[in-house]
Amino acid sequence: MEVPTLRQPASLAEDTGALVDQALESWTAILGVDHVSVDGRSRAAAETATFATTHTVPAIVRPASRDELQECIRIANRFRIPVYPVSSGKNWGYGSRVPAADANVLIDLSRMNRILDFNEKLAYVTVEPGVTQRQLYQYLQARQSRLWLDATGSSPDCSLIGNVVERGFGHTPYGDHFAQVCGFEVVLPTGETAETGFCRFPGALTGAVYRWGAGPTLEGLFSQSNLGIVTRMTIWLMPAPEHFEAFFFQCNRNDQIAPLIEALRPLRLQGILRSTVHIANDYKVLAGIQQYPWQETNGETPLRPELMTGLRSRLKFGAWSGSGGLYGTRGQVAEARRAVRKALKGKVDRLQFLDDRRLAFASRFAKLYQLMTGWDLSKTLDLARPVYGLMKGVPTEQPLASAYWRKKSVPPPSMDPDRDGCGLLWCAPIAPMEGQHVEVIAELTNRILLEYGFEPSISMTLITERAVACVISICYDRREPGQDDQAMACYLHLQRELTERGYHSYRLGIQGMSEMNGPDGYGRLVRAIKDAIDPNGVLAPGRYQPI
Amino acid sequence: MEVPTLRQPASLAEDTGALVDQALESWTAILGVDHVSVDGRSRAAAETATFATTHTVPAIVRPASRDELQECIRIANRFRIPVYPVSSGKNWGYGSRVPAADANVLIDLSRMNRILDFNEKLAYVTVEPGVTQRQLYQYLQARQSRLWLDATGSSPDCSLIGNVVERGFGHTPYGDHFAQVCGFEVVLPTGETAETGFCRFPGALTGAVYRWGAGPTLEGLFSQSNLGIVTRMTIWLMPAPEHFEAFFFQCNRNDQIAPLIEALRPLRLQGILRSTVHIANDYKVLAGIQQYPWQETNGETPLRPELMTGLRSRLKFGAWSGSGGLYGTRGQVAEARRAVRKALKGKVDRLQFLDDRRLAFASRFAKLYQLMTGWDLSKTLDLARPVYGLMKGVPTEQPLASAYWRKKSVPPPSMDPDRDGCGLLWCAPIAPMEGQHVEVIAELTNRILLEYGFEPSISMTLITERAVACVISICYDRREPGQDDQAMACYLHLQRELTERGYHSYRLGIQGMSEMNGPDGYGRLVRAIKDAIDPNGVLAPGRYQPI
Repeated sequence: MEVPTLRQPASLAEDTGALVDQALESWTAILGVDHVSVDGRSRAAAETATFATTHTVPAIVRPASRDELQECIRIANRFRIPVYPVSSGKNWGYGSRVPAADANVLIDLSRMNRILDFNEKLAYVTVEPGVTQRQLYQYLQARQSRLWLDATGSSPDCSLIGNVVERGFGHTPYGDHFAQVCGFEVVLPTGETAETGFCRFPGALTGAVYRWGAGPTLEGLFSQSNLGIVTRMTIWLMPAPEHFEAFFFQCNRNDQIAPLIEALRPLRLQGILRSTVHIANDYKVLAGIQQYPWQETNGETPLRPELMTGLRSRLKFGAWSGSGGLYGTRGQVAEARRAVRKALKGKVDRLQFLDDRRLAFASRFAKLYQLMTGWDLSKTLDLARPVYGLMKGVPTEQPLASAYWRKKSVPPPSMDPDRDGCGLLWCAPIAPMEGQHVEVIAELTNRILLEYGFEPSISMTLITERAVACVISICYDRREPGQDDQAMACYLHLQRELTERGYHSYRLGIQGMSEMNGPDGYGRLVRAIKDAIDPNGVLAPGRYQPI
Repeated sequence: MEVPTLRQPASLAEDTGALVDQALESWTAILGVDHVSVDGRSRAAAETATFATTHTVPAIVRPASRDELQECIRIANRFRIPVYPVSSGKNWGYGSRVPAADANVLIDLSRMNRILDFNEKLAYVTVEPGVTQRQLYQYLQARQSRLWLDATGSSPDCSLIGNVVERGFGHTPYGDHFAQVCGFEVVLPTGETAETGFCRFPGALTGAVYRWGAGPTLEGLFSQSNLGIVTRMTIWLMPAPEHFEAFFFQCNRNDQIAPLIEALRPLRLQGILRSTVHIANDYKVLAGIQQYPWQETNGETPLRPELMTGLRSRLKFGAWSGSGGLYGTRGQVAEARRAVRKALKGKVDRLQFLDDRRLAFASRFAKLYQLMTGWDLSKTLDLARPVYGLMKGVPTEQPLASAYWRKKSVPPPSMDPDRDGCGLLWCAPIAPMEGQHVEVIAELTNRILLEYGFEPSISMTLITERAVACVISICYDRREPGQDDQAMACYLHLQRELTERGYHSYRLGIQGMSEMNGPDGYGRLVRAIKDAIDPNGVLAPGRYQPI
């Protein structure tokens, strides 16, 4: 592999190259040579996502503090070099670390990984962008805290802030991440800083407990945007309830999804279910259990629905499998259990409740349990344990393995989908929480993905009281010739058909930023703000930029 | 009273006057003569708040539609006339309709009062700024809807949108109003429009059910700001629970507030109490029951704590009185009731639960009930009924009467605190939900208000899981000479002492906008946005403007 020298950055015009060189000298003066990478290996890694990309990364800089970051941004402005910040850079399926435009210098914030404040009583933590799910989990464990974080199903090494600013979601009552934060410190595109909410007032006692502050509320500007870099954030944590219980359910037929959603909506709206409920189709579940069944299919793709039916009955999972958590006092959980049972009666083919005691019991006596209940727990438990943990705020590696679905070798101990050529494109439309809508999305997905030769893997999350966030995975092996193009064509087709029907994505990867387009009032307003606060256009050009 | 003609607007320089005249001609051409007021009576009314103000209002214009509003704004830009939008204009205690700067033309949006969309299943309503609490309540009643609105304790004739954009609060699990809305349509200071969230996409099905949309989230910019005029908003409604029960509690001693807050916090954080809990001190309760006890005090003010103690025992209310709602299935409510009872044991001197059945019973058999329980229900019921109603989303006139606290005649049938010379200044600091903090605020309030000759009337609302919103009323009679100045001095003193201790206001009136000041990053950023989108500075200059 070609290793470009500092003097000859690849794919940049000569004079731009000279500016980059000067900027690199300045950055190196600030950060030290260890924290500015221009070697080909680092750059190539940064230019690699889980799908085909073309944008180059001339260098990677790694500030360790807000002050260093500010200096880096000022330098970027001085030399007019676009920069692209990432927290942990694990935005798999949406572009990983690859910038939304060409020739952006990557600003890697993973060294800014301090936990700045923690309050057990008021249940919050204040962190920098490099703090990961694992780090916070361990921090809470070490303090024997009674607080739970809300973890996403991605890697434990994902940044908390990174996920919040992308408006990701998790599994507890704090599952809509962007709704559970406040008190941002932001480095603006000029290098200046701003604090949101009451944090802006020196000596304020309420910066971490009340979101809105006084005057215009600005947090929203710094989510899914290129308007600033969040360098500090307070994340609210959930006190462990007196009792926790998970429920798992299964539908045998594809057409059960619509009535299921109709049955769940009232529980969500009534606050009986306070947490996000996750429902996965058979393809999604299978990819969680194992890799592509190359033997059964004689190496042919895609996995046909007819074959899937056989796998379902052999491996004992449904057309749809779901899970949710019940949180509260013992009495509240018992009451919620009754309500869930009642609502799902006749809607699901299997419904099982699990708590710590039963999980421990089942793990020890899986065989006996199967005899007693007819439910084969061994596979179910393997699948259930990480999901169960997520509902209690325990991050897990497990779902990440599904990125290796179409690979022919097993996932390595240290998984890195970018490095390992895993193909993954995520499309994440929101639907109103009504049966008819999720049905339309499921049907579209099935038709289009199979047509392009991919498995229609879908999860549906009842993310709020009124909305379902669907995550559709286009999973493939990047090492297979032609698959990159095929997958991208599939993604774009799916995205077009979804938006034409009114289902827009809650989150976009660099493959789908064009969905933001539109010379409408919103777009013009965001553009006016961008121009006002980023006069040199250095911060993440193209990222969630409507015009 | 002098009635200025159109040609001679009072208190404006000659050439500005000429511009205003031209603008008035243009506005009149658009809206018709009936909807442009320049008569002295209208102007004087618009220049009157519940405290002394100096800002003049050269005219009042009343567009009936978004298109008309856009035209009005374009005209304001053409002639560089600052304009100040109000929805229903009932922002009592915070400045009513009086602009934050001098010589602003008032834009009264009350004619834009359509309910544009309603969805029983997904539990939302989409409204224009003129839609009032009463209007929505009646709309829901007429449809026999199972949905409840969240009402504020202010007048039923208050605008829903007006309250949301001021980030007001109510009494149900949807009490933090700004957290329960989405899909704004906004007229920007140039007259252009923008839509937020998914509403910006033509044909989107999710504009009313999912808040964040894709890309930067902009709703926050249009709350407590002068950056745009919200002309449409979706407000989420709460499905009536299977069962509702209210609880009322009372503490006899002032020093019980700190342990009470400590006892309530875990209930709020655990989600056992899902709604805002309201706690009022004795002065606040008394002002809800009656006017100032002129006879008992021989006409002297303020009402001394020593006298208050006597009134408390005679009228049977405590040093602190509180209320909250329990929402859910019968079983959930029973469970919550147990938890509340347990948590408040030893913390309160009285705790009573009330549901529809018991309320009806008690109303019919108040005397008998008193014999049975020892609780004198007659007064309590008079006070409880509106609060009980608020917890079920029924707007009430009742709290408004307390604005007449210091008047010597009874409130008129149609109350209008501005017109009737009621003096009212509200100061609304947020505290972390900890006993020590509310204690500091209560002590400060008691000391300062009594020192200035006013009754320290305080309510404390557990507005979220971690924050308490205190509302301190400085209530007086504007017709009493010197009281306007005395009250304003008191307000400014209180505000200064509160902010010095770190307790900033969740909301500001035109009397307190200076609290926004500060040449900090937040202030510079808001200023940059303001300059970019309001180049002529016509929209509500000074309103929540940090620099």
